[in-house]
Amino acid sequence: MKGLWLQNRQLSFRTDLPEPQVEPGMALIRLRTAGICATDLEMLHGYYPFTGVPGHEFVGGVLAAPGAEGWVGKRVVGEINLTCVECEACRAGREHHCANRTVLGILGHDGVLAEYFTLPVRNLHAVPEGVEDELAVFTEPLAAALEIQEQVQVQPGMRVLVVGAGRLGMLIAQTLRLTSCDLKVVVRRQAPADLLARFGIAAVFADEVPENSADLVAEATGSPDGFALSRRAVRPAGTLALKSTFAGDVTLNLSSVVVDEITLVGSRCGPFAPALRLLESGLVDLRPLISARYDLADGLAAMEKAAEHGALKVLVTQD
Amino acid sequence: MKGLWLQNRQLSFRTDLPEPQVEPGMALIRLRTAGICATDLEMLHGYYPFTGVPGHEFVGGVLAAPGAEGWVGKRVVGEINLTCVECEACRAGREHHCANRTVLGILGHDGVLAEYFTLPVRNLHAVPEGVEDELAVFTEPLAAALEIQEQVQVQPGMRVLVVGAGRLGMLIAQTLRLTSCDLKVVVRRQAPADLLARFGIAAVFADEVPENSADLVAEATGSPDGFALSRRAVRPAGTLALKSTFAGDVTLNLSSVVVDEITLVGSRCGPFAPALRLLESGLVDLRPLISARYDLADGLAAMEKAAEHGALKVLVTQD
Repeated sequence: MKGLWLQNRQLSFRTDLPEPQVEPGMALIRLRTAGICATDLEMLHGYYPFTGVPGHEFVGGVLAAPGAEGWVGKRVVGEINLTCVECEACRAGREHHCANRTVLGILGHDGVLAEYFTLPVRNLHAVPEGVEDELAVFTEPLAAALEIQEQVQVQPGMRVLVVGAGRLGMLIAQTLRLTSCDLKVVVRRQAPADLLARFGIAAVFADEVPENSADLVAEATGSPDGFALSRRAVRPAGTLALKSTFAGDVTLNLSSVVVDEITLVGSRCGPFAPALRLLESGLVDLRPLISARYDLADGLAAMEKAAEHGALKVLVTQD
Repeated sequence: MKGLWLQNRQLSFRTDLPEPQVEPGMALIRLRTAGICATDLEMLHGYYPFTGVPGHEFVGGVLAAPGAEGWVGKRVVGEINLTCVECEACRAGREHHCANRTVLGILGHDGVLAEYFTLPVRNLHAVPEGVEDELAVFTEPLAAALEIQEQVQVQPGMRVLVVGAGRLGMLIAQTLRLTSCDLKVVVRRQAPADLLARFGIAAVFADEVPENSADLVAEATGSPDGFALSRRAVRPAGTLALKSTFAGDVTLNLSSVVVDEITLVGSRCGPFAPALRLLESGLVDLRPLISARYDLADGLAAMEKAAEHGALKVLVTQD
């Protein structure tokens, strides 16, 4: 089959990939639309030593599901962690932290930037009829944005700062806007500020952010500068949610975290069902976040486009 | 008056200190018993550039309180942050984080290791009759231990690890024991293990702590080694409460904090009223934590004793 292939940090388009086999409990899925995310790009720089088909944001059609034939023909999205069901984390309901997990297109399981791929049936969510592919493909990153509110109580009276107006920052901002909080997003250029204005969200530049001015900060840059700004902006006894991974270690004055009683919350994958409800409600406006669309055959060009400065969501489709 | 004096990291015992003046809203207090804490010792190493009388853990008798004469003659403990009442943090009920605060014996306000000292009347708490001085002097550090439970919901089913069995670690362990959680305390020597056994608390050595084995870790060493052990011990989606300040910066893999969705909670001063209730209830056993008692005139020897390896609470008294 056709698809992208990552090996030794080299990405290629191949036509000789073996079609995945499907076992009981698993679903064979045909790609309809995929999204490219920062993690996919970071993997090219060795973020994870992954060999295989990259990609984990998708909408697909179920072709086969041995033992669960009711899924066949359904349009689905899917949770990206393939879990063991048996370890302590799984049994405690924290499947995202399964000790034995593989992760779709990231760790030990081929991803979605190919004609076909597989996922456990229990990972699937049917896409509501009214939600078209180009929006449904945002389910996974939208769930990651909602994870903040699974972890932190965002009160309407809070002053909230999102640091970073990229793919994920824009989704975080749109979900937080729904809480009626006093929301600002830190941008580095005018284009994202203009886009945020379309969503009714205030943009600020980094040098306009006062110290200790936010009750909650969501860091969505993954850069040491973004972290430093976030730490400066959060007020004593406030919360700093870390949404992006960082390349390398970050040096931190832990004493000031103690004295100021800051709470740092690492935040990763989120809940799919609420994300699908949010897509169905139309309360988020995602179409302006789509920067470009490519056919799967042009997957390499899609990845290049996604790596461009200022690119937001790049989609890869298959008829 | 007599008292200890800290200047340029040099501690001296002086007999020529000016008696503090008392203004309306303030109370003049005569020392009965003081406790020496790790922060007092760290200040000798320049943790804060403080000049004045050190010490912040005390039980005293109120000698004067202009405009609030009802306090005169009362036996009191007192909150250590002198706040402005007007800044944003104060108005929001987060007085411990007052932007303009001074701190008793730590920052801009003379402390308690002298014959007399002052505190705002609003900082005072009357000591219940049944709680003698040697126990009431633990109110401040006991409140700091309880701050963990102000910030984190400690569920009875949790596996909780306290890293460090010093002055504060012992108090944290005793307060957490009351939640019925599955509690272990990391020790480096046999003596604290034996003491913990008296309290019915399990002790472990660092090399006996499995990775990812604690739902909640309380770090009470303030050392990079203690932090590294704490980070290793906390399970994905678990919480790490930081109770001790650290000398210098600590390097941290923030990506792993994101991927494992760890919550780091800086934790400092806590609530006095619950600490006094706890002392009154007798549910904590603090007398075995007293390592030595000194007269105020021997305050220098008391500080030396407190700095000894293995010393727990050293008290300084005045008849």
